[in-house]
Amino acid sequence: MMIVMTPEAGEREIDAVKAKLATTGVHVLVLPGELTTAIGAIGDPEGVRELGLEGMAGVDRVVPISRPYKLASSELAHHEPTAFSVDGRKVGGNETFCLIAGPCTVETREQTLGVARTVRAAGASMLRGGAFKPRTSPFAFKGLGVPALEILAEARAETGLPVVTEFLDTQHADAIAEYADVIQIGARNMQNYALLEVAGKLGKPVLLKRGLSSSLEELLQAADYILKEGNEAVVLCERGIRTFETATRFTLDLGAVPWLKLHTHLPVIVDPSHAAGDRRLVEPLARAAAAVGADGIIVEIAEDPEAALCDGPQQLYASDFTRFAASVTAHAALVGKRLA
Amino acid sequence: MMIVMTPEAGEREIDAVKAKLATTGVHVLVLPGELTTAIGAIGDPEGVRELGLEGMAGVDRVVPISRPYKLASSELAHHEPTAFSVDGRKVGGNETFCLIAGPCTVETREQTLGVARTVRAAGASMLRGGAFKPRTSPFAFKGLGVPALEILAEARAETGLPVVTEFLDTQHADAIAEYADVIQIGARNMQNYALLEVAGKLGKPVLLKRGLSSSLEELLQAADYILKEGNEAVVLCERGIRTFETATRFTLDLGAVPWLKLHTHLPVIVDPSHAAGDRRLVEPLARAAAAVGADGIIVEIAEDPEAALCDGPQQLYASDFTRFAASVTAHAALVGKRLA
Amino acid sequence: MMIVMTPEAGEREIDAVKAKLATTGVHVLVLPGELTTAIGAIGDPEGVRELGLEGMAGVDRVVPISRPYKLASSELAHHEPTAFSVDGRKVGGNETFCLIAGPCTVETREQTLGVARTVRAAGASMLRGGAFKPRTSPFAFKGLGVPALEILAEARAETGLPVVTEFLDTQHADAIAEYADVIQIGARNMQNYALLEVAGKLGKPVLLKRGLSSSLEELLQAADYILKEGNEAVVLCERGIRTFETATRFTLDLGAVPWLKLHTHLPVIVDPSHAAGDRRLVEPLARAAAAVGADGIIVEIAEDPEAALCDGPQQLYASDFTRFAASVTAHAALVGKRLA
Amino acid sequence: MMIVMTPEAGEREIDAVKAKLATTGVHVLVLPGELTTAIGAIGDPEGVRELGLEGMAGVDRVVPISRPYKLASSELAHHEPTAFSVDGRKVGGNETFCLIAGPCTVETREQTLGVARTVRAAGASMLRGGAFKPRTSPFAFKGLGVPALEILAEARAETGLPVVTEFLDTQHADAIAEYADVIQIGARNMQNYALLEVAGKLGKPVLLKRGLSSSLEELLQAADYILKEGNEAVVLCERGIRTFETATRFTLDLGAVPWLKLHTHLPVIVDPSHAAGDRRLVEPLARAAAAVGADGIIVEIAEDPEAALCDGPQQLYASDFTRFAASVTAHAALVGKRLA
Repeated sequence: MMIVMTPEAGEREIDAVKAKLATTGVHVLVLPGELTTAIGAIGDPEGVRELGLEGMAGVDRVVPISRPYKLASSELAHHEPTAFSVDGRKVGGNETFCLIAGPCTVETREQTLGVARTVRAAGASMLRGGAFKPRTSPFAFKGLGVPALEILAEARAETGLPVVTEFLDTQHADAIAEYADVIQIGARNMQNYALLEVAGKLGKPVLLKRGLSSSLEELLQAADYILKEGNEAVVLCERGIRTFETATRFTLDLGAVPWLKLHTHLPVIVDPSHAAGDRRLVEPLARAAAAVGADGIIVEIAEDPEAALCDGPQQLYASDFTRFAASVTAHAALVGKRLA
Repeated sequence: MMIVMTPEAGEREIDAVKAKLATTGVHVLVLPGELTTAIGAIGDPEGVRELGLEGMAGVDRVVPISRPYKLASSELAHHEPTAFSVDGRKVGGNETFCLIAGPCTVETREQTLGVARTVRAAGASMLRGGAFKPRTSPFAFKGLGVPALEILAEARAETGLPVVTEFLDTQHADAIAEYADVIQIGARNMQNYALLEVAGKLGKPVLLKRGLSSSLEELLQAADYILKEGNEAVVLCERGIRTFETATRFTLDLGAVPWLKLHTHLPVIVDPSHAAGDRRLVEPLARAAAAVGADGIIVEIAEDPEAALCDGPQQLYASDFTRFAASVTAHAALVGKRLA
Repeated sequence: MMIVMTPEAGEREIDAVKAKLATTGVHVLVLPGELTTAIGAIGDPEGVRELGLEGMAGVDRVVPISRPYKLASSELAHHEPTAFSVDGRKVGGNETFCLIAGPCTVETREQTLGVARTVRAAGASMLRGGAFKPRTSPFAFKGLGVPALEILAEARAETGLPVVTEFLDTQHADAIAEYADVIQIGARNMQNYALLEVAGKLGKPVLLKRGLSSSLEELLQAADYILKEGNEAVVLCERGIRTFETATRFTLDLGAVPWLKLHTHLPVIVDPSHAAGDRRLVEPLARAAAAVGADGIIVEIAEDPEAALCDGPQQLYASDFTRFAASVTAHAALVGKRLA
Repeated sequence: MMIVMTPEAGEREIDAVKAKLATTGVHVLVLPGELTTAIGAIGDPEGVRELGLEGMAGVDRVVPISRPYKLASSELAHHEPTAFSVDGRKVGGNETFCLIAGPCTVETREQTLGVARTVRAAGASMLRGGAFKPRTSPFAFKGLGVPALEILAEARAETGLPVVTEFLDTQHADAIAEYADVIQIGARNMQNYALLEVAGKLGKPVLLKRGLSSSLEELLQAADYILKEGNEAVVLCERGIRTFETATRFTLDLGAVPWLKLHTHLPVIVDPSHAAGDRRLVEPLARAAAAVGADGIIVEIAEDPEAALCDGPQQLYASDFTRFAASVTAHAALVGKRLA
């Protein structure tokens, strides 16, 4: 950490900061400047952060030198990209592209099996489907719950596709652990730390969506919550952030993908459906996700989106999915990735 | 809802939308315009929202006419401001100002009792204190848990101050119900719907903080989650939103207070400490909160903020709290409010 | 426009709104609802907007039905994509990809000619270069001015590349009109209406950059300022918006490209350099821009970025530009576009 | 500046940074850390900033130690608050509150004189009124121009109130210099540097509005553009920033006022009208502006807001202005300020 003093700060204030730093055992270096003095504190950034130096007399700002995440860092933890296998599909490692598709919400057995067959036929990697749905309004449909998980299991048995589904509440831990192949943490729960810790302990890969107003550093800190449980199979997912722009539902931050690739060893995928909120934007954004270097995408499809109980306008037509998959796969191929 | 068609939309597209609307039983009115046709759907906005009309051919946009929250609305639910009593302190009703203060986190018995006496001596309304703390980094101090609740209970016994404390995880429901007088839902959990529903059932007033990137309409929808459990004692809290500006930790949205006063019957308080992140800004913002018409504030104080384990720089000095309270109270008095 | 009344509004308030609307000659339709009445005003949205109905008693909100831009609209103005030629390079029309590259700022004759030759050799479409530079700090280098324009003209003479350069102040109109082939309006001037009107009158194509906190509707309204001068050769440019995220300099909004393609007939290009602020992100984002359907990109390159007087870290190495151009062109080819 | 290296950076990269820094003559100090090395560069931050070190091999980030503004700084320039007089009204200095009011736009002589008399009768400090109006749509009313300035001069002659009016285009410099007592720079022009430099030279006080997505540091850098012309009479104005929240037109950032008071010697006022966009929010926000420590406010009033050509819904009723002024003045008095 670097403690920057105000121009008015004198010996007394500088000594007080040094004395406080001394309590943590960090190495202290004073940099006298023309206008302001800066004090470097080397070692144990967490300890220095907790000192609350910003409030001391004569302190202007405390500037972190090291980044706040650890286990997710490609600099501090491991340099090689993390890769793991989900029932034979390789996720991460820069050679594969993971195409995950399925209905927004499991509504009926017929609907889910129908879509699963389409997903399978197009050669996609995994099946997604919501059993428990977080809804902004308490009066909206919230998913079928465990019966939906059973339908997803049936779809997996028939198609061989691993199942990705959202984990919403620690009370559902047993059911999720039993049925899911990949456990999804939704954007609204990215900082629900109790949930992250439980998810990390279930022994399954975790797909962690970025919160809609979470910085990339906070996303990596949230990943640290899962990684510290000994679970190394974590996939990050960019799904759009909240900005002043309302033309699209969220602003898909595709620059996040190459930034994350520089700073973390974890695989990164993109969800273009929720960001767009309009299916006409989903395919261009899915192509862009492949081109920008993502390790995969997760999209919503339906045979009859107009009849869907949730998020219909953003769902791709199942009848068009094979063509869609081929188009995205061609872009992934151009950057050296084949379908997982 | 108002369905706005694109200029190219013809009879066929308009008829398809009308047919779809007909399935919900709403009243349909067509407004032919010079360039575009609009279709009004009157009644059951929730039902129309779920139809997903935005994705239909020829539909440009679906514009809500009614607002998405119900029970929290001063127009739809009840017109008079909600007021309730917490151990003799009146919250809401536009005649009282609720001054809540205390340590960020309960660290020791001595620290908590010392601060509680200061809060009491200044004539404040309630004591706040964290037992369970959500932390961005998994490596930071997370609170003492139940022993902290016991310390708060002791402080209440000695000072007579009701206790406000955060409810973080449904697993802590029994302990929170036993010890808290007011149950706080933190900003990061404003859309943790499982938690909201449990909070609504505990039979205690709930202090609901606005999420750091939640719109005011979403805040009122989150309040609906609590209100629908039959719990009418809900206080909303503006605590700063995330914007591009980084000079202050968050941007305190004081315009939210009069906007909420127009649109909801629920009381509204302000947390200036977390938004500022710097104690030098807390007093001006607390005065402004009183002047803008808030029903109270919640602030953090400490005898030795530099020694606090969490958020020290934003904590007011306990030794200055009596003067601070008098200054804020004078501003509240100017808009007709006395200390609760 | 749709005027939504509050639930409390009665006959009197509704009649007052109708009377006010009657002064503009629009067609008025009343939609009585269960809870609220809405009043449709058909025709002359500009006139209705200027009435300021939001402030009238009983009015809750005024919701636009038609979009606020006109000449830039693909629905109202012309349906076919606009295309025009700049010295033989076709811009717009969905068949070509316009690759514009060059130094951030013209610093010396040698530097500019060197880069121009590289740009030419890679088969790029146009040369960019700044003569007048807007700088946040008044103490920073602001460009060479007219001598820079002369150097750009020399580079054009030698390489045959049309020149794109920024128009910053109406006082420079004559010089810009003399030297530029395409007139760039920078992000900070997107709402400098005096400048837009002058730019529209200079008889040259205009490259209009999106303001860093401008909505897409505002971008199209700014385009209207140019189009209404009779100038149809306008290119829009997405260059990143300001959000809470600071990991990248700005958040490149690639979803804006397909959204604009749906709503305007104007060509759309992307500037990945300024959004990224880091050259390691520029190539992935340039590929993504091609994949998402942009009509081109504009990037900064330098032979020795470390020695550049402005924005060095985001500039691509000239020595790598031919490979870069080939990579981006391959992605453009996949969506059916060849280099302009 | 502090240059933070990546954990992988070795001797070679560190030496290259040191060699580059040596070219600027700054003092260089190396801070070896456990994980990363940081290099302090003391003196000439502008020179170091221009080096573009972020792009060099092994450099992770460049962190500024000193702040980017100079002349506006209360730490670097002068410590005492700047105060100046506008025709006998003292602006700045923490003892006065400057109440500026008037019509949004000068429409007619009668309207303007009528409002001016109301402003005078309420004891306000100055008269505002727009002669040249920036409008988002090219089809909207843009003000009367010079005839409006003449009307304002007549109002000044009758009431003795100094006139505040917006300077929009360098072409109007002579007219503005002749008629205005205080020259307003609007939010959309905060980074129109050509305009700032001309404004600084006109020999009149300048009221500089914060850009709607400008950071506070950028606001102070914009002030530097004016101050460096030798003009010390600059007032800053917070007027709301663009955020994700759309319930209010902009988010009024009242925390900006005490932050600016800590970091600049310039006076700071608040415009609650444009941020709110709804007159029912203007009075609470005006009171809050006084309570938070602003040196004044600028508000829009009209005798018949419903008939105003621009921004009617946010304008206060002239008939209510005396009461409004008394309410705001009472709040200002509580923090030790009397009407200027």
